[in-house]
Amino acid sequence: MQRKLDKIMAICEKRGFFFPSAEIYGGKAGFWTYGHLGTLLKRKFENEWNLDENFYEIEDCNLLPEQVFVSSGHLEHFRDPLTECKKCHFRFRADELIEDELNINVEGIKAEAMDKIIRDNNLKCPKCGSRELTKVRWFNMMFELKVGAVGEETMYLRPETAQSAYLSFKREFYALREKLPIGLAIIGKAYRNEISPRQVFFRLREFTQAELQIFFDPKKINEVENWNKVRRYKLRMFLAKNRKSKKVVEMSCEDVVKKLNLPKMYVYYLAMVQRFYLNILKIPKEKFRLKELTEKERAFYNKIHYDVELFLETLEGFKEVAGIHYRTDYDLRNHQEGSKESMEVINEKKEKFIPHVLELSFGVDRNVFSIVDIFFKEEKERNLFVFPRKLAPIEVAIFPLVRKDKLPQKARKVFSLLKDSGFIVFYDEKGSIGRMYRRMDEIGCPAMITIDYDSLKNDDCTLRDRDTMKQIRVKIDELPQTILKFLNGEKLTKLGKIFK
Amino acid sequence: MQRKLDKIMAICEKRGFFFPSAEIYGGKAGFWTYGHLGTLLKRKFENEWNLDENFYEIEDCNLLPEQVFVSSGHLEHFRDPLTECKKCHFRFRADELIEDELNINVEGIKAEAMDKIIRDNNLKCPKCGSRELTKVRWFNMMFELKVGAVGEETMYLRPETAQSAYLSFKREFYALREKLPIGLAIIGKAYRNEISPRQVFFRLREFTQAELQIFFDPKKINEVENWNKVRRYKLRMFLAKNRKSKKVVEMSCEDVVKKLNLPKMYVYYLAMVQRFYLNILKIPKEKFRLKELTEKERAFYNKIHYDVELFLETLEGFKEVAGIHYRTDYDLRNHQEGSKESMEVINEKKEKFIPHVLELSFGVDRNVFSIVDIFFKEEKERNLFVFPRKLAPIEVAIFPLVRKDKLPQKARKVFSLLKDSGFIVFYDEKGSIGRMYRRMDEIGCPAMITIDYDSLKNDDCTLRDRDTMKQIRVKIDELPQTILKFLNGEKLTKLGKIFK
Repeated sequence: MQRKLDKIMAICEKRGFFFPSAEIYGGKAGFWTYGHLGTLLKRKFENEWNLDENFYEIEDCNLLPEQVFVSSGHLEHFRDPLTECKKCHFRFRADELIEDELNINVEGIKAEAMDKIIRDNNLKCPKCGSRELTKVRWFNMMFELKVGAVGEETMYLRPETAQSAYLSFKREFYALREKLPIGLAIIGKAYRNEISPRQVFFRLREFTQAELQIFFDPKKINEVENWNKVRRYKLRMFLAKNRKSKKVVEMSCEDVVKKLNLPKMYVYYLAMVQRFYLNILKIPKEKFRLKELTEKERAFYNKIHYDVELFLETLEGFKEVAGIHYRTDYDLRNHQEGSKESMEVINEKKEKFIPHVLELSFGVDRNVFSIVDIFFKEEKERNLFVFPRKLAPIEVAIFPLVRKDKLPQKARKVFSLLKDSGFIVFYDEKGSIGRMYRRMDEIGCPAMITIDYDSLKNDDCTLRDRDTMKQIRVKIDELPQTILKFLNGEKLTKLGKIFK
Repeated sequence: MQRKLDKIMAICEKRGFFFPSAEIYGGKAGFWTYGHLGTLLKRKFENEWNLDENFYEIEDCNLLPEQVFVSSGHLEHFRDPLTECKKCHFRFRADELIEDELNINVEGIKAEAMDKIIRDNNLKCPKCGSRELTKVRWFNMMFELKVGAVGEETMYLRPETAQSAYLSFKREFYALREKLPIGLAIIGKAYRNEISPRQVFFRLREFTQAELQIFFDPKKINEVENWNKVRRYKLRMFLAKNRKSKKVVEMSCEDVVKKLNLPKMYVYYLAMVQRFYLNILKIPKEKFRLKELTEKERAFYNKIHYDVELFLETLEGFKEVAGIHYRTDYDLRNHQEGSKESMEVINEKKEKFIPHVLELSFGVDRNVFSIVDIFFKEEKERNLFVFPRKLAPIEVAIFPLVRKDKLPQKARKVFSLLKDSGFIVFYDEKGSIGRMYRRMDEIGCPAMITIDYDSLKNDDCTLRDRDTMKQIRVKIDELPQTILKFLNGEKLTKLGKIFK
């Protein structure tokens, strides 16, 4: 689907969704800029990302001291297998070469084993075709830098936001009255020195994560207050044993607990995450699955790990956009050892323990790109984004039918009315009404309002639905309320009589 | 006022406003974490920071290629004068030594001149007292790092968000229909390798900026559509000639244009910025001033430069929190030369030109800290933050009078009602009502609601005003509306009868 990808990218670059960072200097792989529409769409995703009403957002530095990553294990383990062509000196990831050529997943295996696979299968440089490749060596993906007047201290750009929540846990535990569970959310930048950035927003060097770390008493992992609300809710499980058949099975939360022996709390959050994708982001069910990771595939500190995968036409398959990780007490325990600060808390029974952590981790850019992929639609006469109405970057567009006879003045008044009511509004008067409609269709604006000659007489306007292109007339003083209902999902026919 | 600073910091660290980043590892100078209350306060500042309704927000990477900073001049000019004590090897800024000891501002002068001042005045190491200091040398404040599998590319963490707006200008100009003026806003991180971070949030190594770059046709610098709205508005000008007397003069915008020969557009934004501080942030007038910078003090590319300064008791003086910079076409012209991409646009008269830029630049952390300083209040029986109601991190607190007889259940219902109505709400039931009030006073929560025995009978509750400690009774079904009015500034007496 390169064709579809090209089409989407052309629209996104032209209309201000996103484009390569520092593009006028040729850009750098893995770095992107969000234009004004992309920024609005990203903000909307971030604001809707509200998986549990009992969490608190914190904000930390992107630069953290070396000791943090000694304790977290990143300094030792956060690395990719690198190989180099001896002929053309192209450097690339050995695991990707093997995956691309042989369709073997080599996650978790040693460098020597990769060497052997490459040799045994006679794999060659993807650039020049030479078969002389250097031995696979490990390459740490964190960006290192020196801080201070003569660079006396080493710090790193964080490769995930999670560590910041662990570092702040004790402070926040006390500030939040010493109760568990506590959810600490961070929406912020993370950095990885990827050897080969690719697949648009799916392997970036600078990216935004939205991560929620839930700290809890491991003895209560099967106590969930709202369990009844999800008990019968069906999860779309893509189990490891079905990897070959690609079969997704729908199982109730209750069954998942019983049959897969997963803790209730973990399954509850699987349900919360699935609901977010299906109900809030309105992802079609068949494009969503919860993929089980095997022990080999998951990080060694993750006891349970499922990924959220969405099917993207442009990238021709299911792609990971989020993960639900049961990290146990791995992180807090290591920071306790590394910092000598106690991470223990005391429960009602006066038992001392280190809390366990359940992590909900989302790649914001990947999700934004997925929304753009999934809601792109090609019709005979137009290309458009059929974003869920509440996610649309621009919510309402206002046009005068013509640029004379005081129609623009009237239209500008309606613009102000809606802007003051808190909607994200765009005014346009350049071109024919048909062309103005098309331009707003293209960026996925769900509601379009036209001021015509009747508007001057009757103080009303037309409201056009992006998806059906149908129109109704609405009194201007009722417009804010009508638009609110419309953005909340009400059908146009329920709001007025279709006349066109 | 070290005592006041200590008090504020103790509350802020304990209650979750902010604390040193990676504190469990001892922290690093110039890096801070926002806890859950600080994050809410910061978000509120960022959301209120809306100086002009016609600007668009974009988001770019914090890491940018070297060429960007060659063109912008940062690689050559963004530097501090560094000296080192030959005895104890303490490194510090020569300009600060001179300023601290002699009260001379040396901005813009050469390293040799600073050497001479230090020698002539026999200045000594602030740490060990030795008079043997190395020659002053320049130290670039950008953080440099290597990107790619073997570090083949040099990139820098941006020292200001501004460059990202310039890099995106052409893309956004076309996406926004080729009209000037265009305002591109960025709220994001910036980084400076400060030699000596100090003064809490006033010299950080990682910090958040909110910057608005307004691109305009220089021929129209005296055309302002809404000029009549500010014409008679009085600006609090702290002119360079009054530096010694410290006199602030109030001048109407009209007078500022005439007497100081400043462009109308520039003065219009001075007014917008002052209004933001006085009307939205509710900074007391006498703590606000617009400080004129002399040619020597301002960056060489700034043709006009005023700083916003606020008086902070904790730091014992007026401190810079924002700047209004007329950067001319300096940046776009240099990027045009450096990238060979044309930055020219065409106006209605078919004239080609490079737009000029007016920059409104705010240090978000500095502003957050200023709010904390200015609204801290010590009373006989309590310490509290008297934040403007709309800026308060927690807007409403809800308590049951006692923890029995179904009062907690009722209180939780009210909690949900207000949460669903969009307010930022906190529930507490731990301790006596008096202690719960004090705890919320301390973090500046403006509205407190108590559910008592009468609430069960009459379906009402008490609403307490943080500042006056007076109370009224409110029907629960009228609560969302009443709270909304209260947060918008309505006096308690207008909302009900004071009974306590």
